[in-house]
Amino acid sequence: MPALPPQHDLPEGHADDGLTPFHAMEILALARQLEGQGRSICHLEVGEPCVPPAPEVRRAAVDALALPQRYTHAKGMPELRARLARWYRERHGAEVDPEHILVTMGSSAGFILAFLSAFAPGARIAVTRPGYPAYLNTIAALGFSAREIALSPETGWRLDAEMIEAAFRAEPFEGLLFASPANPTGAMISPEGMAGVVETCRRLGVRLISDEIYHGLSHGMRCASALETTDEAIIVNSFSKYFCMTGWRIGWLVLPEALVRRAEMLQQNLFISAPSLSQVAGLAALETTAYSEVQREGYGRNRVLLTEGLAQLGFGVGAPSDGAFYAYADASAFTNQSLEFCKAMLAEAGVAATPGIDFDRRDGGRYVRFSYAGTEATMTEALERLGGWLSR
Amino acid sequence: MPALPPQHDLPEGHADDGLTPFHAMEILALARQLEGQGRSICHLEVGEPCVPPAPEVRRAAVDALALPQRYTHAKGMPELRARLARWYRERHGAEVDPEHILVTMGSSAGFILAFLSAFAPGARIAVTRPGYPAYLNTIAALGFSAREIALSPETGWRLDAEMIEAAFRAEPFEGLLFASPANPTGAMISPEGMAGVVETCRRLGVRLISDEIYHGLSHGMRCASALETTDEAIIVNSFSKYFCMTGWRIGWLVLPEALVRRAEMLQQNLFISAPSLSQVAGLAALETTAYSEVQREGYGRNRVLLTEGLAQLGFGVGAPSDGAFYAYADASAFTNQSLEFCKAMLAEAGVAATPGIDFDRRDGGRYVRFSYAGTEATMTEALERLGGWLSR
Repeated sequence: MPALPPQHDLPEGHADDGLTPFHAMEILALARQLEGQGRSICHLEVGEPCVPPAPEVRRAAVDALALPQRYTHAKGMPELRARLARWYRERHGAEVDPEHILVTMGSSAGFILAFLSAFAPGARIAVTRPGYPAYLNTIAALGFSAREIALSPETGWRLDAEMIEAAFRAEPFEGLLFASPANPTGAMISPEGMAGVVETCRRLGVRLISDEIYHGLSHGMRCASALETTDEAIIVNSFSKYFCMTGWRIGWLVLPEALVRRAEMLQQNLFISAPSLSQVAGLAALETTAYSEVQREGYGRNRVLLTEGLAQLGFGVGAPSDGAFYAYADASAFTNQSLEFCKAMLAEAGVAATPGIDFDRRDGGRYVRFSYAGTEATMTEALERLGGWLSR
Repeated sequence: MPALPPQHDLPEGHADDGLTPFHAMEILALARQLEGQGRSICHLEVGEPCVPPAPEVRRAAVDALALPQRYTHAKGMPELRARLARWYRERHGAEVDPEHILVTMGSSAGFILAFLSAFAPGARIAVTRPGYPAYLNTIAALGFSAREIALSPETGWRLDAEMIEAAFRAEPFEGLLFASPANPTGAMISPEGMAGVVETCRRLGVRLISDEIYHGLSHGMRCASALETTDEAIIVNSFSKYFCMTGWRIGWLVLPEALVRRAEMLQQNLFISAPSLSQVAGLAALETTAYSEVQREGYGRNRVLLTEGLAQLGFGVGAPSDGAFYAYADASAFTNQSLEFCKAMLAEAGVAATPGIDFDRRDGGRYVRFSYAGTEATMTEALERLGGWLSR
């Protein structure tokens, strides 16, 4: 079985900041290593669509390659920012000044800019548990401090205004970062729920960062943007998921007016500008929602197939997730050491999935996240392999 | 005259961290605004080649567009890291383990990863004055503290081991970040000078970060890598300059063994992976040095033309720069307010250049940086416009 790399050395004089690997990326690296040895692997570990973006996106990129790809305006190409503003008007009925939009190197750089724009050093930022692992690691690496709000399967892993209020009363925080649809659970809050979160944050003086990267990928419920009820939140979004553009590293922020200038100066210095070819491609992608909807329907079929299949194998999965493309499965029938379990499942069954410890450092040993962004054939094959492996 | 944006608001409770705009990007934005109004602008403000990368690079990108562009290994495509290792063997006689190479979103993300990998919070990092403005701003934004080592035109703006030692004795620091060829002066240190810097840092216990982004762009002297004499330095490099790929946002780090794992974990969480198409393009670019050499020869001609022309107009420029593609000109015959001067020069003469305050917050009011990475025709036209404007 391939070995995971050892823990890291800390710089001299550096107290342990709790930095952890992003296990999804570690499992991906191990999976590719095995593939290099000729093994067949079902990829359910990383949250990325199995198809490229729409043909129009690739054509726009090919056309743009006739020109030099230079630094753009630090905030992004004006055409792209104007088009994104129209996106919010048409999809969310929200008026956004294109000057408040900042195009980023994926949502990853967006989080860095959001935190450093909005918060003083050491500020406390609340996130959900389980949640996207980069939240905790980025917060710690940049010298902020994280507060976790625990969610539970009994309430469908959903966050609500009362939980925020209760956590704040127990120990206040300056920021709240959360996603709907959420990673790793796919849980969503309703438009009314989002309005409640916005209002609660406003009342408590908490800066809301709404991670809307899975917007568009819901299976019934409407994806409400925080922008519909406030212009004081920071919106983080990306072309990676709905538009199938993970490797293009392109996303955007919508910023409250007071933070725009500081965020721009940070972008100029920390990143200069986002990849120009990806900006051109992103502009084209915004016209390809019909293609994205076809992919969403495919995820919708996988969602039922995978959820039912996992349940039959003995995983605790509850109802299929509201959105995104993940099943967050209780694996306690098999393990309470999800990392070891996932490594064995990869090496022995050829199925790659992500251990719950990525998303929940306390209880994640009992959970495994399966991504259903792959093909239907991959889901079927993965379930078959798992069935054989678990019954041994 | 178009107005620069106002200063920024600081987050509540945030002491002024001295964050400044990257004026080169601000001037670029103003220049494009004027071009949008139909004005003709000579671009000498931003350090970017005027030509696209070699045709082979664009062809590799077009071919790759037939495939989905996914997340790669967090440290970068194995093929690219292996090829970069060969690059160091062939160009520098240095053995580098591909596992110590980390492909980044431009050198920009490289600096963030280098600092957060190597230093404890609050660590003091020495940089040169003048120097690349993002150094100071990134150091401050991430909670480190900068020490400036002043250079002077009398010694050709060159850094040497004694200056480092003297600065350290006056007030110690944990890291030293410097570039050869340097921005904004083009100053280089000799291979012996580099060995002296490496040895001094080793003796003082200072972690060296060698910014080698302008490597390849020298006009006589050999570009020595710190890797030739140490494997304890962090090397920062990029495809932007020598390979004409600014907008592709692709660079790399070479890391000392002890920092590799922490840097990888930071990359997984802060950035996931560098743009995949740019990685493919960078791999192709490493075979196109003949094309890059043609560009370098063009810069070499511009270098003499621009330096002589600026001297005739009354700027203090000294000898043409050793490397990179900048002339750092003493403009004190005309101004001690370089920002106002550059704004007026842009608005009235249609020549964009970068105020020295970008590179030197103390004495930069007397300096202007002109980039000669454009065409010869642009240099000639800019000098003509400047001649007319200054004589009014």
